[in-house]
Amino acid sequence: MYTFDVEQAKAAALEAAYQAGVVIRDAFSNVNKKMDTKSAVTDIVTETDVLAEKIVIDRLKAFNSSFVFVSEETNNKIELTDAPTWIIDPIDGTTNFVHSFPFVAVSIGLAVNKQCVLGVVYNPILEETYSAIKGQGAFRKNKDGQDVKITSSAVTEISRSLLSTNYPYDRSTKALNDVHEKMDAFLKQNCRGVRFTGSAVINLVYVASGQLEAYFENGLQIWDIAAGKVIVEEAGGVVIDPCGGEIDISNRRVLAACTSDLAKQLASGLKQVEDKYAEK
Amino acid sequence: MYTFDVEQAKAAALEAAYQAGVVIRDAFSNVNKKMDTKSAVTDIVTETDVLAEKIVIDRLKAFNSSFVFVSEETNNKIELTDAPTWIIDPIDGTTNFVHSFPFVAVSIGLAVNKQCVLGVVYNPILEETYSAIKGQGAFRKNKDGQDVKITSSAVTEISRSLLSTNYPYDRSTKALNDVHEKMDAFLKQNCRGVRFTGSAVINLVYVASGQLEAYFENGLQIWDIAAGKVIVEEAGGVVIDPCGGEIDISNRRVLAACTSDLAKQLASGLKQVEDKYAEK
Repeated sequence: MYTFDVEQAKAAALEAAYQAGVVIRDAFSNVNKKMDTKSAVTDIVTETDVLAEKIVIDRLKAFNSSFVFVSEETNNKIELTDAPTWIIDPIDGTTNFVHSFPFVAVSIGLAVNKQCVLGVVYNPILEETYSAIKGQGAFRKNKDGQDVKITSSAVTEISRSLLSTNYPYDRSTKALNDVHEKMDAFLKQNCRGVRFTGSAVINLVYVASGQLEAYFENGLQIWDIAAGKVIVEEAGGVVIDPCGGEIDISNRRVLAACTSDLAKQLASGLKQVEDKYAEK
Repeated sequence: MYTFDVEQAKAAALEAAYQAGVVIRDAFSNVNKKMDTKSAVTDIVTETDVLAEKIVIDRLKAFNSSFVFVSEETNNKIELTDAPTWIIDPIDGTTNFVHSFPFVAVSIGLAVNKQCVLGVVYNPILEETYSAIKGQGAFRKNKDGQDVKITSSAVTEISRSLLSTNYPYDRSTKALNDVHEKMDAFLKQNCRGVRFTGSAVINLVYVASGQLEAYFENGLQIWDIAAGKVIVEEAGGVVIDPCGGEIDISNRRVLAACTSDLAKQLASGLKQVEDKYAEK
């Protein structure tokens, strides 16, 4: 049993996100950001990622020092336990950040018993704040700083959907063909279009707020998914495995959709491509 | 000879864009926008496109009633003459507008002797204003409404570039393969990533402001290119034909890049794919 006040946890996460947002916003316009690479030459980290992460973790430790932390820049060993665990991406969309492209966000999720119970997502450039506590609905702050309830789109057909994905860091022929064949499937069914924003969590919260009908991607990490998952679900959307069935947020892939009907059709299309490559 | 004050033309275009922006912003959050389709089931027009266009044209006619108008929703016959011609897209990114995805813009260009001499681009959702007069630099308004000079990125290598494109309305296998093979070429050269924003003119102004290194797309119309072209060029970037050489803005395709070195490398890659499909 873990006892803590989830409202206070949300307040701490928001404060952490806003504090990190200040350094992200300050560094955003600098065209010569210092950077390094990680898993691939296209997988970038900057000193601002590291600084923003420290700010977030320090603030959340002040809330409760016994919680576990899983965070992009310090913790690559991810074994989720039942303990309350903050799951943090200090800058989701680091490549966007480096290029001053405005889709960047601080993403803070909280899991208890391996279930996401709280999500806070803050884009300090566009000044957008999304949050959700499990069972209490999803919210976006309006210009006066008040929480306004959001609901996902009611669309059930691919032909009325605006979809989203991203290219992976893996630039092998197999990885790129996988993306392109999935695009072909849905573009030929006359989906309205596909947006590649470069930020997993922004795609997720835009599904929550009805600005996109769905988002799918492989090759993700748990901190790309955790916070956004609660927000999508609390907005009325669904978050499942891209091939259908329950999602395992440690399994590095996600399909979020505004309705379960749409999710099923997309999962069917995604599974066909996955199965084709699994055979090879 | 045509005599008019280009500064006054810019002021009129800005006022027209802001007036249209009011109706776009008001309608933006409505999830049930009335719409119709045009060249394809994915090519959408709303009543707000038509209303915004009327507002822009009325304001610009008040500036000078003798100028010619080429505009997305009323004028599909595009034969550019030497006369001063306003080239207008009342909502660039109509699909985004329908889905409340925030990349939408009013785009107003002015051509004289078939040359673009003025461009104004206004995103009423993100409150971003870009403008340029030929020979006088490119500008973005800051939060206080003051014009701040912008310059394109200094990057010359594909491996340091964030690129952008969009899927066409044409969803044939040939059209989609064309996009995917171009993506393959640059992703395998480890470009940082590719963004699909769904708005031609936002891609263009982001190249101008250094937030993207390059943008290329086929299947465009003159109103998707005219205003953004001046802004990119005045910010220090280049706008050429995707296969290299001078651009014909009536030829429905564009390559904009931050530097001519980068433009050359991209044009070489794009031409290889174009030539392959031309042979078929």
